[in-house]
Amino acid sequence: MKKFLITGFSGFVSRHFCEYLEHNGIRSLIKGIDVHNPDLKREDFKYIEFDFERIDLLDKHRIEDIIFKFQPEYILHLASFSSVAFSWEEPILSFQNNTNIFLNLLEAIRRLNIDTRILSIGSSEEYGNVNEEDLPLTEEHPLRPVSPYAVARVSQELLSKIYSTGYSMDIVMTRSFNHIGPFQKEIFALPSFVKQLVQIKKGLKKDELVTGDITIVRDFTDVRDVVAAYYLLLTEGEKGEVYNVCSGKGWSLKEIIDKICDILEIKVHSKADAGLFRQNENKIVIGSNEKITSRLKWKPKYSIKQSLNDMIHYWETQI
Amino acid sequence: MKKFLITGFSGFVSRHFCEYLEHNGIRSLIKGIDVHNPDLKREDFKYIEFDFERIDLLDKHRIEDIIFKFQPEYILHLASFSSVAFSWEEPILSFQNNTNIFLNLLEAIRRLNIDTRILSIGSSEEYGNVNEEDLPLTEEHPLRPVSPYAVARVSQELLSKIYSTGYSMDIVMTRSFNHIGPFQKEIFALPSFVKQLVQIKKGLKKDELVTGDITIVRDFTDVRDVVAAYYLLLTEGEKGEVYNVCSGKGWSLKEIIDKICDILEIKVHSKADAGLFRQNENKIVIGSNEKITSRLKWKPKYSIKQSLNDMIHYWETQI
Repeated sequence: MKKFLITGFSGFVSRHFCEYLEHNGIRSLIKGIDVHNPDLKREDFKYIEFDFERIDLLDKHRIEDIIFKFQPEYILHLASFSSVAFSWEEPILSFQNNTNIFLNLLEAIRRLNIDTRILSIGSSEEYGNVNEEDLPLTEEHPLRPVSPYAVARVSQELLSKIYSTGYSMDIVMTRSFNHIGPFQKEIFALPSFVKQLVQIKKGLKKDELVTGDITIVRDFTDVRDVVAAYYLLLTEGEKGEVYNVCSGKGWSLKEIIDKICDILEIKVHSKADAGLFRQNENKIVIGSNEKITSRLKWKPKYSIKQSLNDMIHYWETQI
Repeated sequence: MKKFLITGFSGFVSRHFCEYLEHNGIRSLIKGIDVHNPDLKREDFKYIEFDFERIDLLDKHRIEDIIFKFQPEYILHLASFSSVAFSWEEPILSFQNNTNIFLNLLEAIRRLNIDTRILSIGSSEEYGNVNEEDLPLTEEHPLRPVSPYAVARVSQELLSKIYSTGYSMDIVMTRSFNHIGPFQKEIFALPSFVKQLVQIKKGLKKDELVTGDITIVRDFTDVRDVVAAYYLLLTEGEKGEVYNVCSGKGWSLKEIIDKICDILEIKVHSKADAGLFRQNENKIVIGSNEKITSRLKWKPKYSIKQSLNDMIHYWETQI
């Protein structure tokens, strides 16, 4: 029986992580915490038991109390205000709800002196603007964050390293690139496209897709591959190391839209909304997954087409 | 009449900054804020007028209120929990009182949309452990912080860059190396040595000097040179740029102790206290001041001997 504390338990990555444990028959006891209530049902799971508590990670006394009582073997720290756009509007809230919450978590474990492994989730945004000749980005590439969100993530990673080296805590870090899949909220670009296109297909919307800049290229990984990587990193990753979690392939948003339209057998025209263009936007981001694939035998299993298919099926049931 | 808001107004750098303005006849209106009361006397100053308010920069509403009322032309942000040792004991307090207070200040200015120039004070600690072949450190050297304090300072600098590029705010940054001079508190190594050695000279203490690791080499600049640099950076520094503030010379703590003993004409033996050794200590830190000297015509004027002499005179009046 493995014991996991999962922060950000009500989010879509946590849902897929629980399903990963279930599908692989990994008997687990999970303590989930989040500011929102989850919509998982206990009866849907046979191999995992979970218990949920609604708390704000800024409340460092409560988090210490929960960790002391639960004594987790593993902590999957998914809690984050992960929107770059929001971070430009509310940099303080973004910073507190990325960096400060993580520092509270680290301090709770240090003070309690609990033997636990933490997976600190970072972001490809940490790399910032990059030149095409530097692609695909390896973990050695310098971090030059260009948004408040990205700064918060770099700060989180630097704190992870300090706690790992200076206090000998057991921390593994990721820089996770864009992930996609069923249940992802439509505030992100791809689920927003899929939702709109499914609406168009069903005749619920005129055939015009509202987008931001669709020339940008991103490295998308299916969330089900991402959670498989997180499980491997928690159980077999090397202490103090940082790993890119990515597919190693880049797709422009335009190409993605074309693929969704092909699957749906529709034609639409896109309308760029300047309000959806981001400040300091990175043009092309593609990661190298050489480190995680060679050291941990992880490999993405879902093709982009499979991911989009599954997202379409998901949105078809939601509309 | 120049208008300065000074955070950390009650500290020793602020005192010397005010004296710099006074000695150079720079008519100024100063709003000082700090959590501690200052011990400056208004009647000692002819050219500068100051007003003090006791506030905690974590109180973002009050800082916004003060900035709105005062409408500063320049902000000298000196407030900091600057002890590396303390940051290992209380990483959350260290982080909040370096990074979060700075973010509150930046946000206040952004929200009020006030046209002001900010000097963000950083630290040589941001560079972290360095190899001897990389010395003297230029501003291009990668930042690899090795203490919670250093991470907080790197986070502050990254936020400065984001606010400068993303919100077009007028921010100049420093990485300030060790500074020394009269009025510095004895929690720092050099004033602690000077105080102990003056006590020994006066026969108030047995001739044993308690130290940490005295083989480490640091780049010391007289605080009076440092504040001259800060004034130049505020008035002539280039927006968005970061500047080392340092002497370009390295002295081991052992050499410094010998110099103080020479001036005092005493002989002592040093006793290393393991409790004063720091975790992840950098062995040698020497900066390059080529950027600030070439671009701003700044040059350190005080020799190490002059600084130590003046510190000795100061401590002689205190004991």
